[in-house]
Amino acid sequence: MPTISHRAQILPQSPIRKLTPYAEKARREGKTIYHLNIGQPDIHTPEIALEAVRDFHPSVLEYTKSEGLDSLREKVVEYYKKHRINVDMSDIIITSGGSEALTYVVATVAGADDEIIIPEPYYANYISFSRAFDAVCVPITSSFDDNFALPPIAEFEKKITPRTKAFLICNPGNPTGYLYSREEILELAALAKKYDLFLIFDEVYREFVYEGEHFSIMEVPDLEQHAIMIDSVSKRFSMCGARIGWVVSKNKEVMRALLKFAQARLSSPTYSQVAAERAFDVDDSYFEDVLREYTRRRNVLIKELQTVEGVRVSMPKGAFYCIAELPVSNAEDFCIWLLNDFSVDNETVMLAPAEGFYATEGLGRKEVRIAYVLEVEKIKRAVAILRRALSEYQAIHK
Amino acid sequence: MPTISHRAQILPQSPIRKLTPYAEKARREGKTIYHLNIGQPDIHTPEIALEAVRDFHPSVLEYTKSEGLDSLREKVVEYYKKHRINVDMSDIIITSGGSEALTYVVATVAGADDEIIIPEPYYANYISFSRAFDAVCVPITSSFDDNFALPPIAEFEKKITPRTKAFLICNPGNPTGYLYSREEILELAALAKKYDLFLIFDEVYREFVYEGEHFSIMEVPDLEQHAIMIDSVSKRFSMCGARIGWVVSKNKEVMRALLKFAQARLSSPTYSQVAAERAFDVDDSYFEDVLREYTRRRNVLIKELQTVEGVRVSMPKGAFYCIAELPVSNAEDFCIWLLNDFSVDNETVMLAPAEGFYATEGLGRKEVRIAYVLEVEKIKRAVAILRRALSEYQAIHK
Repeated sequence: MPTISHRAQILPQSPIRKLTPYAEKARREGKTIYHLNIGQPDIHTPEIALEAVRDFHPSVLEYTKSEGLDSLREKVVEYYKKHRINVDMSDIIITSGGSEALTYVVATVAGADDEIIIPEPYYANYISFSRAFDAVCVPITSSFDDNFALPPIAEFEKKITPRTKAFLICNPGNPTGYLYSREEILELAALAKKYDLFLIFDEVYREFVYEGEHFSIMEVPDLEQHAIMIDSVSKRFSMCGARIGWVVSKNKEVMRALLKFAQARLSSPTYSQVAAERAFDVDDSYFEDVLREYTRRRNVLIKELQTVEGVRVSMPKGAFYCIAELPVSNAEDFCIWLLNDFSVDNETVMLAPAEGFYATEGLGRKEVRIAYVLEVEKIKRAVAILRRALSEYQAIHK
Repeated sequence: MPTISHRAQILPQSPIRKLTPYAEKARREGKTIYHLNIGQPDIHTPEIALEAVRDFHPSVLEYTKSEGLDSLREKVVEYYKKHRINVDMSDIIITSGGSEALTYVVATVAGADDEIIIPEPYYANYISFSRAFDAVCVPITSSFDDNFALPPIAEFEKKITPRTKAFLICNPGNPTGYLYSREEILELAALAKKYDLFLIFDEVYREFVYEGEHFSIMEVPDLEQHAIMIDSVSKRFSMCGARIGWVVSKNKEVMRALLKFAQARLSSPTYSQVAAERAFDVDDSYFEDVLREYTRRRNVLIKELQTVEGVRVSMPKGAFYCIAELPVSNAEDFCIWLLNDFSVDNETVMLAPAEGFYATEGLGRKEVRIAYVLEVEKIKRAVAILRRALSEYQAIHK
């Protein structure tokens, strides 16, 4: 039998999706599942974006340019202008989701065995995107007690080796909800410049900020050659299924390389680009409503979780996730048990075990990532189920 | 300044798209361009597929399962049944185009420095997908005089090393139009089994066969562990812009690895999957019309090209490309000249220089790939322009 590559063997399973077969089984058995495992918001996609697709009447569904529709990239440029970011169309390449953007950025900055320094816990798929290209994620553990703030800059400097190519930061953070301050970002930028490293910022949750103000990597002066930003419409416009993201950078060498990757895969999906383009025309009140709603959800979730015995959680400032430590020895086993063996009135909860969001062996084993992407009443119900589940689970596993 | 990875530096530009900036300039100058450079058919996408999108009224445009909508995968299974291929849903993972399918397959079968043997000229992006993962394409040159048939099987055996992981074949071939015979495929399959190699067949043009019958790698008995098929709706239903393809394999280890890659990027675009699913319901007469049309186009293109002095071309049996040798010393220079410096009544032709379809240094320099994706009258006009261009170019470059 032929053998698959070593990288394919060691590629981790997504902790966000690996329990899907258990969820499907539970659903087949008639259980209702509250999905707190995945950042799939229930917020309506802007109607004008959906209409744009219905009004799009091609006779041939053609490829677009590899770098994306000019009209979409223009919208992105305009949008950034409103956020104090000055870029032009040539600084943007549209991709099939932020995922593809990250994939090409990793391939562009890091060769085999090159290192990317990432504060952990981090978005689990960063490790998959890196390992796909045999690059190495070097973690720096951020502290639960410190709300997962940027670890001391000296820690970053200590980890730099001749193989270090980049820092990768998610701001606000998935899964931590941490919002990096202007000072933290400037410190990191100075370090990146000192060692001539790329500074990759994943800013797909930039709108989801509940305390303080978002500061973009693209606002840092004189960082044109180092800064690479990842962005997407998925969360902003609640249109994850469009799979439209992009890379922004003023580094022309990076953009030329990215375009080669983009041309090899021809183009991003046309319908989705049409929808994404139009989504930018949504009224500002859309975001205001969304922000109000998520602020409520966050407040309710954290307040409720804090009343569950043995659960430890820190207050997220942005995005729509939090990391919670549970009073169990292995959170993944517990998450599977929730789907397989537990329900209250035929309802249960799906969570993402957090171990896969850490690179350091043994960390996160008692933690889960919780996405607060459901209505307040559903969140309350989900926490109530979780409360009962924990109590029952602990009784069994005494 | 930070430096990009070696792989990003050496990644070739797509010969199909690299001249796009010249084409855009020509267009801005008011020139009409006959695009024979890219396999973007002008055939109408089945109306039912477009309608399916207009009738799809989600309130939230959600992710789908990473392996693709079950309903789409079921359609694919049904479709194959009609083509003597028996697979089930679990043997299929939906991807963002055949491109993504190939990307993950290469990442799964070949580690860094592993080798994939490919007859050349081959689809140029195979080399990009391989180099992205530091894998090596080992070419075996197929012969122009022999219509680009499978090179003698002994040539393949000679190239096998301990690093060889797979053969990669496009059938019918892009850019050659060659249709591999059952005997050729069985010979290759026996060799793959003998050395325990994967046999990757890109069959996205399976419907576009003008002489003989298509024989699929999935029809070879007892090849379950070795066979991997790439497929897509792009050409079949003239919906390249959907970016929907898939991988088919009965090798469970391969499928598990592919699913990990697929889960890391979350899902394929939702609208596109809806359109693709419905496209399979198109009436059989759609294909009959398409086939009749392409047969005419092929016959006209080849007949016309054969009358152009100094042009050498062989008869394609499938797909919608041919390789033509031109009476110029450097086809790429000529292709750029066509866009930059030439026109007849403000019209010109865009071709894909073929050097990028070869891995062997120096081969293909006088050749172009021509896609016959335009109506017969346009093809005639395009060849007339090419005829005049060649005569003028030769006069200048005497």
